Amino acid sequence: MPKKATNPAEKRTWSQLLRVDPDHLELSALDTRATPGFDGGKSDGRAALQALEPAIDELQERLYAHGRTGGHRRLLLVLQGMDTSGKGGTMRKTVGLMDPQGVSIRAFGAPTPEERRRGFLWRIRQALPRPGQVGVFDRSHYEDVLAARVRKLSTPDVIERRYAAINAFEAELVESGCSVLKVMLHISRAEQKERLGERLENPEKHWKYAPSDLADRALWDEYQHAYELALSRCHTDAAPWHVVPADRKWYRNLAVAHLVVDRLRAMDLDWPPADFDVAAERAKLRAS
Amino acid sequence: MPKKATNPAEKRTWSQLLRVDPDHLELSALDTRATPGFDGGKSDGRAALQALEPAIDELQERLYAHGRTGGHRRLLLVLQGMDTSGKGGTMRKTVGLMDPQGVSIRAFGAPTPEERRRGFLWRIRQALPRPGQVGVFDRSHYEDVLAARVRKLSTPDVIERRYAAINAFEAELVESGCSVLKVMLHISRAEQKERLGERLENPEKHWKYAPSDLADRALWDEYQHAYELALSRCHTDAAPWHVVPADRKWYRNLAVAHLVVDRLRAMDLDWPPADFDVAAERAKLRAS
Repeated sequence: MPKKATNPAEKRTWSQLLRVDPDHLELSALDTRATPGFDGGKSDGRAALQALEPAIDELQERLYAHGRTGGHRRLLLVLQGMDTSGKGGTMRKTVGLMDPQGVSIRAFGAPTPEERRRGFLWRIRQALPRPGQVGVFDRSHYEDVLAARVRKLSTPDVIERRYAAINAFEAELVESGCSVLKVMLHISRAEQKERLGERLENPEKHWKYAPSDLADRALWDEYQHAYELALSRCHTDAAPWHVVPADRKWYRNLAVAHLVVDRLRAMDLDWPPADFDVAAERAKLRAS
Repeated sequence: MPKKATNPAEKRTWSQLLRVDPDHLELSALDTRATPGFDGGKSDGRAALQALEPAIDELQERLYAHGRTGGHRRLLLVLQGMDTSGKGGTMRKTVGLMDPQGVSIRAFGAPTPEERRRGFLWRIRQALPRPGQVGVFDRSHYEDVLAARVRKLSTPDVIERRYAAINAFEAELVESGCSVLKVMLHISRAEQKERLGERLENPEKHWKYAPSDLADRALWDEYQHAYELALSRCHTDAAPWHVVPADRKWYRNLAVAHLVVDRLRAMDLDWPPADFDVAAERAKLRAS
């Protein structure tokens, strides 16, 4: 359990708290209702999220300013998780705190034949955030080692090579100035049943439901195993994986916000200096 | 002046209040500090904007759901205005109220040689919102009749033809299910001086300033005239122009939010019905 925040010397960052241990990753042993790093309940958690808004605002604007003045830094947030794990809710509540001018969201469904023909990373490369931007992937290249493995869309050999390809790709991304923040939203099988049930009970949510959701649900254990493999094999120092307990929506939103803030802070970006003569411009403006 | 909200029978919509009269459009006669449609001050205005969030939430989700289930409706918000008129602030505060999953923002700078070669509407067509989305243009095809006219980048003949091309293009857009909401953020010349001054005083804002801003400022009257021509010539029933007094930032944010809400409401979208057997799926879920 995390130490109380009252002892800063022992406080671990959210990234340290939520980062996977690739040698001992067992998803079923992780409590999906836990709230590591936070002692309060729902209303405290929501208040804590709101309280992060000014920090997010400033950090994101620094990144945006950096991109507008020739910098190369950018952030890619990769969101993965089973159906109903809350990828959409995280975008609404956490990504929604950011300035939309600096955000680009891309959802990845099953690849088209064209995309398939060009290799699984092609469409990913097309969708990377521009300098100064925060890119968010709603599913990602990880589906090519998750769904592809569970539904046997690719052979074990091909999938094996993809882990290495992903690690090389992400290393190159980080090298080029893109911080890669990978987050699995982890819900329990029981919680998924609850959430799918809500979608079926409420006519306003019918559009969110697809009968194929149950087909994936029937493969729950296979998916969990595929996640364990993917998160272990593609956990690197440059681009580590994090597992966020996601049965409690407010905690999920708060934890992802903290992970984003930690990453933006780590970039340690200054406001770009003027590339013009400030005094001269002031004089010209006065005269205008 | 608008009637008090206490007399609903006489209440005009925000679109009616802010829509231009193409036969008598004189921007210099419009008070940029006015707050048509709203009687309160800054803190009331900010509270009124927050109070719109639930309506925006629901209306936008209906549009998004519509797009996800095969519908064609979408909304394009075109933001135009002089430098510092608050296009960025409107995106942060008003567009920022929306679910970022359903929003796509595109900023248009000077066209590249490639873009120029393909005709001025080509890059615009590339950037149109997908079904279910709210697209926001930070500047737009109107620059091709504004900056192009003032800076003499095109001949008067060419610009004359562009008004007609824009009207035909927008009519086609509307026909295809895209609601086109055109808004000019209208500030005074004095307010611009104030805002440019802030950018020069505050080192955290230096990156937002460019010496070329003063070149455009020197052409203020020419720009205002170009705006009057463009807004008159391209004001149609299908895609009318609105002028939002924008010296007061809180009013600008609130007015644009109301214009968006009015448009989304006018779409009158229901929640999509289930395209599966709900009872059968419930039974399958229970057994899963």
